Amino acid sequence: MKIADMNWMQLESYLQQDDRVVVPLGSVEQHAYLSLAVDMILAEKVAVDAAEPLGIPVYPAIPFGVTPYFAAFPGTVSLRVETYVRVIHDLLDSLARSGFKRIVLVNGHGGNQPAASAATEWMLSNPGVKVRFYNWWNAPHTLANVRSVDPTSSHASWMENLPWTRLADAPCPDARKAPIDYQRFHVMNAAQAKEYLGDGNFGGWYQRPAEVENAMWQVAVEETRAILQGPWE
Amino acid sequence: MKIADMNWMQLESYLQQDDRVVVPLGSVEQHAYLSLAVDMILAEKVAVDAAEPLGIPVYPAIPFGVTPYFAAFPGTVSLRVETYVRVIHDLLDSLARSGFKRIVLVNGHGGNQPAASAATEWMLSNPGVKVRFYNWWNAPHTLANVRSVDPTSSHASWMENLPWTRLADAPCPDARKAPIDYQRFHVMNAAQAKEYLGDGNFGGWYQRPAEVENAMWQVAVEETRAILQGPWE
Amino acid sequence: MKIADMNWMQLESYLQQDDRVVVPLGSVEQHAYLSLAVDMILAEKVAVDAAEPLGIPVYPAIPFGVTPYFAAFPGTVSLRVETYVRVIHDLLDSLARSGFKRIVLVNGHGGNQPAASAATEWMLSNPGVKVRFYNWWNAPHTLANVRSVDPTSSHASWMENLPWTRLADAPCPDARKAPIDYQRFHVMNAAQAKEYLGDGNFGGWYQRPAEVENAMWQVAVEETRAILQGPWE
Amino acid sequence: MKIADMNWMQLESYLQQDDRVVVPLGSVEQHAYLSLAVDMILAEKVAVDAAEPLGIPVYPAIPFGVTPYFAAFPGTVSLRVETYVRVIHDLLDSLARSGFKRIVLVNGHGGNQPAASAATEWMLSNPGVKVRFYNWWNAPHTLANVRSVDPTSSHASWMENLPWTRLADAPCPDARKAPIDYQRFHVMNAAQAKEYLGDGNFGGWYQRPAEVENAMWQVAVEETRAILQGPWE
Amino acid sequence: MKIADMNWMQLESYLQQDDRVVVPLGSVEQHAYLSLAVDMILAEKVAVDAAEPLGIPVYPAIPFGVTPYFAAFPGTVSLRVETYVRVIHDLLDSLARSGFKRIVLVNGHGGNQPAASAATEWMLSNPGVKVRFYNWWNAPHTLANVRSVDPTSSHASWMENLPWTRLADAPCPDARKAPIDYQRFHVMNAAQAKEYLGDGNFGGWYQRPAEVENAMWQVAVEETRAILQGPWE
Amino acid sequence: MKIADMNWMQLESYLQQDDRVVVPLGSVEQHAYLSLAVDMILAEKVAVDAAEPLGIPVYPAIPFGVTPYFAAFPGTVSLRVETYVRVIHDLLDSLARSGFKRIVLVNGHGGNQPAASAATEWMLSNPGVKVRFYNWWNAPHTLANVRSVDPTSSHASWMENLPWTRLADAPCPDARKAPIDYQRFHVMNAAQAKEYLGDGNFGGWYQRPAEVENAMWQVAVEETRAILQGPWE
Repeated sequence: MKIADMNWMQLESYLQQDDRVVVPLGSVEQHAYLSLAVDMILAEKVAVDAAEPLGIPVYPAIPFGVTPYFAAFPGTVSLRVETYVRVIHDLLDSLARSGFKRIVLVNGHGGNQPAASAATEWMLSNPGVKVRFYNWWNAPHTLANVRSVDPTSSHASWMENLPWTRLADAPCPDARKAPIDYQRFHVMNAAQAKEYLGDGNFGGWYQRPAEVENAMWQVAVEETRAILQGPWE
Repeated sequence: MKIADMNWMQLESYLQQDDRVVVPLGSVEQHAYLSLAVDMILAEKVAVDAAEPLGIPVYPAIPFGVTPYFAAFPGTVSLRVETYVRVIHDLLDSLARSGFKRIVLVNGHGGNQPAASAATEWMLSNPGVKVRFYNWWNAPHTLANVRSVDPTSSHASWMENLPWTRLADAPCPDARKAPIDYQRFHVMNAAQAKEYLGDGNFGGWYQRPAEVENAMWQVAVEETRAILQGPWE
Repeated sequence: MKIADMNWMQLESYLQQDDRVVVPLGSVEQHAYLSLAVDMILAEKVAVDAAEPLGIPVYPAIPFGVTPYFAAFPGTVSLRVETYVRVIHDLLDSLARSGFKRIVLVNGHGGNQPAASAATEWMLSNPGVKVRFYNWWNAPHTLANVRSVDPTSSHASWMENLPWTRLADAPCPDARKAPIDYQRFHVMNAAQAKEYLGDGNFGGWYQRPAEVENAMWQVAVEETRAILQGPWE
Repeated sequence: MKIADMNWMQLESYLQQDDRVVVPLGSVEQHAYLSLAVDMILAEKVAVDAAEPLGIPVYPAIPFGVTPYFAAFPGTVSLRVETYVRVIHDLLDSLARSGFKRIVLVNGHGGNQPAASAATEWMLSNPGVKVRFYNWWNAPHTLANVRSVDPTSSHASWMENLPWTRLADAPCPDARKAPIDYQRFHVMNAAQAKEYLGDGNFGGWYQRPAEVENAMWQVAVEETRAILQGPWE
Repeated sequence: MKIADMNWMQLESYLQQDDRVVVPLGSVEQHAYLSLAVDMILAEKVAVDAAEPLGIPVYPAIPFGVTPYFAAFPGTVSLRVETYVRVIHDLLDSLARSGFKRIVLVNGHGGNQPAASAATEWMLSNPGVKVRFYNWWNAPHTLANVRSVDPTSSHASWMENLPWTRLADAPCPDARKAPIDYQRFHVMNAAQAKEYLGDGNFGGWYQRPAEVENAMWQVAVEETRAILQGPWE
Repeated sequence: MKIADMNWMQLESYLQQDDRVVVPLGSVEQHAYLSLAVDMILAEKVAVDAAEPLGIPVYPAIPFGVTPYFAAFPGTVSLRVETYVRVIHDLLDSLARSGFKRIVLVNGHGGNQPAASAATEWMLSNPGVKVRFYNWWNAPHTLANVRSVDPTSSHASWMENLPWTRLADAPCPDARKAPIDYQRFHVMNAAQAKEYLGDGNFGGWYQRPAEVENAMWQVAVEETRAILQGPWE
């Protein structure tokens, strides 16, 4: 259930019977032909779909994350690591104050990894609260499904090209892009990266048939749901 | 137009003909019987409605703001001032890097006022970019309209009770609440504030007829649109 | 009573009978023909005058505040918002450690508003201490008095031209300046602002007769004193 | 000349002929029987007296410094080192923006030493501006004079007991206190330090005759003045 | 070559012919029966061995990293993420100032991952300098070698039990520990983690024969050396 | 005993009988003909030699300190004051968590003085733990010994030219350098400082006979050892 569809009194009731909550972590950044908000949209969608049958509330996604390497692509918003860590700390402080004791951060963007470190260090001063940082897109089953379709699938390829992220007026090529060279990419500055990446896809098919998409999404939702269920000890 | 409905290439095209952009600033916090996300929903909605005919892109709202006084109400998320200022700085740095030169922060929450200070100090080191911080809810025409309906209208009253923020399963009272005493409220700690505020409404009618709502919203959208148009010098 | 006129033993005695204290917040910045320290001088003076008959100690004013928009005027000192918030937090920590439980920040400069947010968030972790942030210059009675004399009075006009802030060798014009356009001013960078503002007065009479000044000051002192008296719950 | 006695236009004129400026650094903290503001008062007074014949402007003292070891004495205000460093950086940024190129920080409190480090690191990114951090009370000639009177003179002894810092209603003992043991003091926590220090004097005569005071002050003013004169290369 | 074996004049000469440099990143934390400084020792050793034939200078390792999950084991030192990011930024600023243009951070501890993010965001403001963050222990060839010996090898197992990290007076068991459950470990607080981990080994053989150790180390050194050689574009 | 020669179980045993620990503070910076790591090497060596007979564990030195004035000499790494203060705070938090109650920071570099302030302010929130900041090189007996050999000895002179810091391939001159003018040095920017300092020695004999070195070191080790022994109250 979305927090946006609840008021504080309803949440107060919920907290008398459960103490789990989900916050999706997004990013607004280049995703080739797809929406600039892919990571935000998918993190929120997978979280809501996973939480629905469990009745666990889901906060609106934090739209912005850490993505300096895409800074030269128009529209990209990148928070500095320090800023991001503080956002995570303040968020967790607030959730703990509300009475949540088991918190899942469903992350949609690789660059947001410092949130995992932030959550771990926050738990050191909040030993009574559990925080799980969870990358929905590279969890074992989801990743296995993606690779079974196309082992080179990556950023902005078909695995992120879903009904909620593609744009009516910006069709993706019916093609398969060769994977980028990560070793080279990692030492490029922002301008070099923009030139090197071209449209921004990191490799793999730009699109796959609807049934392939659906199967992947189904795995992702179920794997995320399992995380919400535990283990919590 | 929502940024979420654009890809980076489309935004690159836009930037060749215009350099304006909007970022809504929200808050997730108690709003009595209404959605916990009222300030986020309305800031984003008024921004999108205002920007639509001008073709100016609108980022997803930053959901969380500064709201320590509501900390005792479950669901409230409050960023510390330092954190919030950093988020604003990083956001503006990113937008300037993309090539935006005229940025409007459409704010939906009074506690987010430090973003105005953050924007002004940011302009000191970025003299070529203009940032306007804009509170849609207390702009002169909108405020006049609200007060003409009910001079005591405030937080969580009818002026925020709109089709996009009310909850099907949580009807608002058909009543008018007496205004709170702000002098007392401002020195209360979070626990005292929760007790004092009761349901959380700060005063005024909980609901008004649809035509009153619509008229208010119309004024707000037009006043916000005028801000996007200028002056910018 | 000024803290500067007390030693720690005297303050220790005071704390056995009262727990109120005042800290004035100033700014060193352009004030047209008047002293660069207007905001510091008046905040401290109104605080001392108000506190005198109540026997409440008053700290020396913090001279510097947040005023980036005046950065192009020589002499202006502006602290960044983050810095200022930290100063306020450290100050409040220190006062609470001394045993003060009711603290009034008497503020003389509009740009210092983030101190109000800082104080509120500080109270969240210090629920046993009350902090009131108080703008002496726009409190209701004082503002009403000022507007009754000249509705356009503003920064560096007669309302700040008092015996303690005017300079013997820099007489003010006997004139009334047209108000500035705030919408334009708020998106100007520092250099544009300096050019636009001319001498720096924001509008209104540069000077008024002594009896008008005195009457205004009397209202301000009494209104500030009332704040020191409460309510504190 | 005090900045408080100048307006921005006068300062603009000054900057066409000189680029030196002084900022006194104080502390509000226990000084035994003397004013809680000793370090602020003396730093500002010695700076103003030294600068007077040279026509160099002097800012109001920053009242608060770094003094955690006196935290248990009522009235003490201590900024954290990080806060203080930021204040110094922002101050220097502001002064450089005004056009000052030779800045003297006249410091009145030993605990403010991190300001020296802050100034040095600031110069690394501002190679065209010189900042001298100057402890007026332990400069060679002043210290020699103080020690010639009483080699054990220290915090809150006669060397700080001057017409501007003593309190009419709090006479100092006509006695000489044995010096404290610094090795022990440095590992005491705040509560232990308060108990150990008694009235707060660190050792030496509480008072000396007026001519001794005057002679010391004369040395201090002249030594400070020499610093303002250079060398600056 | 170790920086500790050079003076500034020798480094100045080096910089006229090459612009590469290495900084090892360590951690002081529990490593079961092995030295508390394993991560520091191995990062520095692999860096020095790799750099030797290339003549590239190697800084002393930063001993402390980010390791909050081991906080309950005596001896563990953990920097907060914010602190660590600042250390990395300051380090890179310093190296760039010296004239280095290709910098390798050879990391010995998984928790230090935020340094990778810090390096990437630093490159955004320093587009002329390349920084490669390199985990020597999970680079492809090294990891393949480790897994070929024992697929469950992990923290504090044989792969870190080398002549430079084992202690004469603390022999390791001749045994193979079952791997821990990472899902459970990641939501444990520090006290629970200490209890759960027992001696601290995460799984795998505690020791392997010298020739197995040597072969692994050889792979690691060569793979690290290859990184120093490029690609750098 | 070096922490690097202990595992966590051994340290846990130690903590049942003693609660003292040492952390050396170094700097990597120009030292004329000597190793760039002089301050790190000597702080660690004097700490280890002093602690040895007492059985007190010694952490690896923090290699980097605060040294902006040497920034123009290749190889120098300087942390900003804020960064350094955070490192010290995090370190002390970690040591306190391990159970250490008496901590000595053996400092080898004058620029690291803010660590003393950081330690003192840390004790304010950790009143049960004692931290002594100790400059081994200007402690009374050591300094007296150094000055008895050569009163002008300073940075990079014979007092730092020891078997562990000199380089086989970089012989020091057999000469005595005239002392620098500190007043001038302190207002120089980094480029001016590099030019002014020449080889980097601040004055005094570059080298002294082995027996002079040994005698000095003996005094330093014993004086440091006495500090470890107390007083601690």
